[in-house]
Amino acid sequence: MKVAIIGVGTTKFGEHWDKSLRELAIEAGTNAIIDAKVRGSEIDSIYLGNMSAGRFIGQEHVAALVSGELGLSIPAVRVEGACASGGIALRQGILSILSGQDDIVLAGGAEKMTDLMTDGATTALMGAASQEWEAYYGLTFPSLYAMIARRHMFEFGTTREQIAKVAVKNHHNGSLNPIAQFNKEITVEEVLNSTMVADPLTLLDCSPITDGAAALILCKAELAKKYTDNPVYIIGSGQASDTLALHDRRSLTTLDATVKAAQVAYKQAGINVDDIDLAEVHDCFTIAEIVATEDLGFCKKGEGGKLLDEGATELTGRIPVNTSGGLKAVGHPVGATGVKQAIEIVLQLRGEADKRQVKDAKIGLTHNVGGSGATAVVHIFSR
Amino acid sequence: MKVAIIGVGTTKFGEHWDKSLRELAIEAGTNAIIDAKVRGSEIDSIYLGNMSAGRFIGQEHVAALVSGELGLSIPAVRVEGACASGGIALRQGILSILSGQDDIVLAGGAEKMTDLMTDGATTALMGAASQEWEAYYGLTFPSLYAMIARRHMFEFGTTREQIAKVAVKNHHNGSLNPIAQFNKEITVEEVLNSTMVADPLTLLDCSPITDGAAALILCKAELAKKYTDNPVYIIGSGQASDTLALHDRRSLTTLDATVKAAQVAYKQAGINVDDIDLAEVHDCFTIAEIVATEDLGFCKKGEGGKLLDEGATELTGRIPVNTSGGLKAVGHPVGATGVKQAIEIVLQLRGEADKRQVKDAKIGLTHNVGGSGATAVVHIFSR
Repeated sequence: MKVAIIGVGTTKFGEHWDKSLRELAIEAGTNAIIDAKVRGSEIDSIYLGNMSAGRFIGQEHVAALVSGELGLSIPAVRVEGACASGGIALRQGILSILSGQDDIVLAGGAEKMTDLMTDGATTALMGAASQEWEAYYGLTFPSLYAMIARRHMFEFGTTREQIAKVAVKNHHNGSLNPIAQFNKEITVEEVLNSTMVADPLTLLDCSPITDGAAALILCKAELAKKYTDNPVYIIGSGQASDTLALHDRRSLTTLDATVKAAQVAYKQAGINVDDIDLAEVHDCFTIAEIVATEDLGFCKKGEGGKLLDEGATELTGRIPVNTSGGLKAVGHPVGATGVKQAIEIVLQLRGEADKRQVKDAKIGLTHNVGGSGATAVVHIFSR
Repeated sequence: MKVAIIGVGTTKFGEHWDKSLRELAIEAGTNAIIDAKVRGSEIDSIYLGNMSAGRFIGQEHVAALVSGELGLSIPAVRVEGACASGGIALRQGILSILSGQDDIVLAGGAEKMTDLMTDGATTALMGAASQEWEAYYGLTFPSLYAMIARRHMFEFGTTREQIAKVAVKNHHNGSLNPIAQFNKEITVEEVLNSTMVADPLTLLDCSPITDGAAALILCKAELAKKYTDNPVYIIGSGQASDTLALHDRRSLTTLDATVKAAQVAYKQAGINVDDIDLAEVHDCFTIAEIVATEDLGFCKKGEGGKLLDEGATELTGRIPVNTSGGLKAVGHPVGATGVKQAIEIVLQLRGEADKRQVKDAKIGLTHNVGGSGATAVVHIFSR
């Protein structure tokens, strides 16, 4: 399997009080089109990851909206798998090209979360979890991930400080990323002392509410060199599902969907975990990064905390994780995140990541999760 | 292009006060799996068309929900293009198989519209239109289609009685369909005298609010005979987009997205319109069927009314349209409709449509529209 990425584009991530979803999506899409040096008329279809525009801004049918605003009349499909919607958009774009129906695809993600129309963002986001078995009983996403954190601490002796180090690392990386919502470094003490959200997770353990959009131009591998001298190739794509409700799973501390999606992607790419030079993983909450690094095989189960203590996931470490700043510092416009992760890997593999540049990065991985793990999407990229 | 359909399943369409979205989706999915005689473990991925579960029942992430309830851990993707979500689910399933990644795919659609959580169904459905340019100014879907009707009457002399005949025909067909929400025949006079909704459209010109689900088992064409003696093949798939807002288009009486999607599908299938034996078209409002029969080429532009006067679209006519009863009589659970259309064609091509059976049906077409025409999906099926 081989599909090329020939262009990338984003908006700044943050609170965009002066921009609508359509403006954000068009800005990112246009930037990607310019970067790829393709004409709009060369694009064969659009996949747009968006979780909840219906609830956030009253607008469904957002892929056709974007297509129409770009002046195109091509197939336009919104895909949704909660916070994994962006990763799914990338994957559907890949399948569309592999099907032989499309040569060039715009795969993007967008979310406008601050203009909330119907009710609170926390309530809207609970649409990613089970309404009947979780939301109804008062659970929220911070509390779901807090249970994962508590159980991880209990089973493996993971410390509160180790968990906080995820936020510290990712804020450091975010401070080097011009699109990040937060450019400020923080300390472990600040994380521990910030407002409690759901014990043990404090405000600085949680990714923020964010507006933003991101877009990729995908291209049939054989045609890529026609457009660019430095294509990045997707060489593996895995997706898997699990129960929506956390309590229905066999374990609180492993996301089986991540494990399965990674297995599929590694196999497809013909590589093993040691070949990965860097990764963007789904750190919606700090504990989620620790679980992800274990489930992806960067360390043994239970040793994700140790990985942080060793500095292995820092920019200069053995396996840099969330060099962009992650969801934590770049922000988490839910439908856009999976696409933004891919863009960070593309920039790194092209050698365009500036102060965040990982030396000799050749193979990268993205890991995008929906809900508390009911969807996981893993992609592997190569120069 | 050739992909097989080896199994179909639906719920009854109607007001299901005692069933949730998950129960409806599982019922339809299980029926399709039983019909196809496949094991759940043979299914490689799930595509679920759903327009607005976030607003209707507070639940996003519905494809993973269904996958989890079926006990599967495969890729599960919700696709959305307003009322064309079902047709898009079918199309994405086809692309998934053509990509070589999947052999067997469950493509379904589901919508639970009566348990409305956030606000009225008419408001939620306006998520399919432009929030900023249509909903904000008080437009609703009946009023958008009323403008199309008025303009069609003005440009082509289409009469109010001709428009009403769509409802009469489709209620007749629905009276023969056990899954239909309405099994009652109606007369032109009853349509004209029913409550005015948006002049000239009365209550009986409008498709209803409906709960329901529908599912197809798709299979790589070469493997189909392993499962069934009577596969139906999809031989053409076209999708196109247009502006979300009606006023941005060059015409009120032609849906360019339908014209383009049909062209693509006809070409892919290697047929022309005269080869079509029957069609399920998107009659969300009566006028929409008239416009569709013209845009699909069943008659010249402006002559859709005459087609009804001649009885050409009746069960025994030259080109039977909406033999199922259409959205009008079967009901319109928005995400499920496109899949239900495909199921009607499968039943007809298999010779299993009972009292609705079209004699010697060999090639059928489905036409599924999102919004007032911003998305159109056309599929062509063959024995």
